[in-house]
Amino acid sequence: MPSTPPTPSDTADQDAANDALLETVARARPDQLADAIADVHPAQLADLLEAMPPDRRVHVWSAADAEVRGETLTELHDEVLAGLAGAADPEHLAEAVAPLQPDELADLEPHLPPAALDAALARLDPQKRRRLEHVRRHPEDVAGGLMDVDAVTAHPRDTLAGTIERLREQRRRGEGPSEHLNSLFVVDDDHRLLGVVALADVVSYPPDARVESVMSPATGLPVDLPVREVIATFRDRDLLSAPVVSDDGLVLGRITVDDVMDAISEEAERSILAPAGLDEDKDLFAPLRTTLAHRGPWLLTNLAGAFLAAWVIGHFEDTIERLVALAVLMPVVASMGGVAGQQSLALIIRGLALNQVGRSNRWRLLRHEMANGAALGLLFAVLVAGVAHAWYGMADLTLIIGAALTANVFIGISLGTLYPIVLKRLNIDPALAGGMALTVTTDVLGFFSLLGLGTLLLL
Amino acid sequence: MPSTPPTPSDTADQDAANDALLETVARARPDQLADAIADVHPAQLADLLEAMPPDRRVHVWSAADAEVRGETLTELHDEVLAGLAGAADPEHLAEAVAPLQPDELADLEPHLPPAALDAALARLDPQKRRRLEHVRRHPEDVAGGLMDVDAVTAHPRDTLAGTIERLREQRRRGEGPSEHLNSLFVVDDDHRLLGVVALADVVSYPPDARVESVMSPATGLPVDLPVREVIATFRDRDLLSAPVVSDDGLVLGRITVDDVMDAISEEAERSILAPAGLDEDKDLFAPLRTTLAHRGPWLLTNLAGAFLAAWVIGHFEDTIERLVALAVLMPVVASMGGVAGQQSLALIIRGLALNQVGRSNRWRLLRHEMANGAALGLLFAVLVAGVAHAWYGMADLTLIIGAALTANVFIGISLGTLYPIVLKRLNIDPALAGGMALTVTTDVLGFFSLLGLGTLLLL
Repeated sequence: MPSTPPTPSDTADQDAANDALLETVARARPDQLADAIADVHPAQLADLLEAMPPDRRVHVWSAADAEVRGETLTELHDEVLAGLAGAADPEHLAEAVAPLQPDELADLEPHLPPAALDAALARLDPQKRRRLEHVRRHPEDVAGGLMDVDAVTAHPRDTLAGTIERLREQRRRGEGPSEHLNSLFVVDDDHRLLGVVALADVVSYPPDARVESVMSPATGLPVDLPVREVIATFRDRDLLSAPVVSDDGLVLGRITVDDVMDAISEEAERSILAPAGLDEDKDLFAPLRTTLAHRGPWLLTNLAGAFLAAWVIGHFEDTIERLVALAVLMPVVASMGGVAGQQSLALIIRGLALNQVGRSNRWRLLRHEMANGAALGLLFAVLVAGVAHAWYGMADLTLIIGAALTANVFIGISLGTLYPIVLKRLNIDPALAGGMALTVTTDVLGFFSLLGLGTLLLL
Repeated sequence: MPSTPPTPSDTADQDAANDALLETVARARPDQLADAIADVHPAQLADLLEAMPPDRRVHVWSAADAEVRGETLTELHDEVLAGLAGAADPEHLAEAVAPLQPDELADLEPHLPPAALDAALARLDPQKRRRLEHVRRHPEDVAGGLMDVDAVTAHPRDTLAGTIERLREQRRRGEGPSEHLNSLFVVDDDHRLLGVVALADVVSYPPDARVESVMSPATGLPVDLPVREVIATFRDRDLLSAPVVSDDGLVLGRITVDDVMDAISEEAERSILAPAGLDEDKDLFAPLRTTLAHRGPWLLTNLAGAFLAAWVIGHFEDTIERLVALAVLMPVVASMGGVAGQQSLALIIRGLALNQVGRSNRWRLLRHEMANGAALGLLFAVLVAGVAHAWYGMADLTLIIGAALTANVFIGISLGTLYPIVLKRLNIDPALAGGMALTVTTDVLGFFSLLGLGTLLLL
């Protein structure tokens, strides 16, 4: 079989190629569709489907090859998946999902219409149905939900030649290993994990060597280990696969790095969307009602914060009436505190994600950031006060805006450090709630400090 | 060798364990340090080092095992690496980095002090120095900069048994394959890529089968393919490794999925830090001067935007003096437009990262979001106008705030969609510049629409 030609080598070329594909598929007539997507991989097709309006998705999906259709469903975001599954023919859907791996099937299940699900389950052979039931027992967000249950094992007393012979026999019986197999899990007679042996070692050490003499210690992942920790383990130890074990050390299945990559990508998407109060399953082309349901609550929360800030300003109407300059300058104080705080927030959220912030260093970090806050606050206060002085030429106003800005930048940076640590302890995602909490605080305190000082000193 | 015991299974336990480790290392006396970090992996040690103040890092790093020290350096963020390398003993440093892979060495080079670098180069054998020179030719952000140059190849006419025999011979010569090897690249006599054969197939198909009969088409990555596209290819095709090829199809090296995972993690960190104007190489404990250099320019940019907004407000001082309620309500209009726009911005930035936004659908997306903007704007305008009416009971003010809010939410959502598309075309990272550009716009337009309408209609 020939190798595929190298893909275009330049980002601009690549973007143009993606664009061209998107356009070809968007414009293809029904009879041209199958040709247009003939060479498209499932993950690419999933991206394409999500880039087009919902009413076109089921046509394009149906035009794909049978083996691509099932895999494509596993790559879609939940909301898009549910829409497509609702619109597709149930028999057609059942045919597409039946060949999938049990862990993939378990992920799809909640999003398939009952008719399609029943038809798909009816197609499974008894062994696969048993494996599916096994995976189903574990939630999606722990190791058990990511694992594949057909781990290939080796026995410690076998020779390498014997191990290879056993794999050939399995292949002759039509149960050849996946091409992603890179290591065998070494187990005792009770299926308890003893170690792991790399295929690279199986093929390169002398054929009469015993498995136990070349195996290395295995990192057994507890079946209920959270996905976040699964990712960290794979990343820290550069694993390609790892055994999933029960509480008593029995091998239950295997997680491969491609499943982990998908989990990392979801994490990356979440870190883009969480600060806007959205999650990664949102559809670009969600209908209006869905959009309101998605975005409304977040906007409502922000509205409450904004009214709180307005209420604070409302207490100083007399002050503003007498010195309108305060109303002109108050957004500067609020915004500088907010942006300075967002920088600390981002650094701490990254630090929490990398397990770099904990009990032993959080006070030191807070002190460090407070020193930064004081320095940055003073520095920018001089700048802002200078501009305000050039603008209005009122010495007391200059002093007040300088003091308020120093205070608000200091508070913003301190709270930008503190909020994510506190939110994490409360089991609230700091990336989701931290930014808005910070902005509301720096707005309220920015307005209060400027207008409060103004009331005290000017009037 | 025994398997390691399962790690704690619960996120809280895991956090506690990380915390405990951080604390132990932070408090260990010099003579206890080596014991405290004896079981720590390089990636974990790198995270630990970054979590402690700079003056302690070199002591902890020096206490690690020799083989851990080098790998740890490759896992550090650039800024921390440069600090540590500057403080460490050059000979000590040279000894740690000399055993690293050429691609890792090439990444470290720019951050090592000249004395340490020269000492390290002097330790390399001629073959490794040649390989290093090969990797150096390629920038860090393309496939050539990620690749390892010792790709293991197979010949199409060899039998599988012959291929295994060749690997055993290499092992006898002390050149055994890496345990991460999962596939061999099939090349012709000119070293041109023909395909790839999985080790799982080598060990399971009949020993007399020829390599060419079991190989599959290979995805050759062009040596100058941007890392972003390397990541997308691995993710889309679930690859564990891929050959890197020259323009004329010669195999130059091999990229493995663990290198790609590191690149994905950097991407994820970037998406957390970019909206705050920072990059992923920032040190949590950067000294004050460095902090000012990092954060200052971003704060200065924001200050310019804030003064622009203040300048707009300044034009309406008379209006505010006559109706202070406008000053009270103006942050509500600005903030709602900003937050509504951030949601569209996040969705589009995610869509751009997944190649889901292009020429063929961007106008449709913009129309879709404009419809969302009009609907959300009207909905929240009714709410805000209701509250304002209850507050002030002035029909014309109620109308004005409703109109200004509708306009600003609509504008925020429209520009939140448009900005990232335009920024990307200008080759500016939308995640970096999009949020601030949007906030400045919604602030300026929010103040202008409310105060402008107020001036027109109330006075």
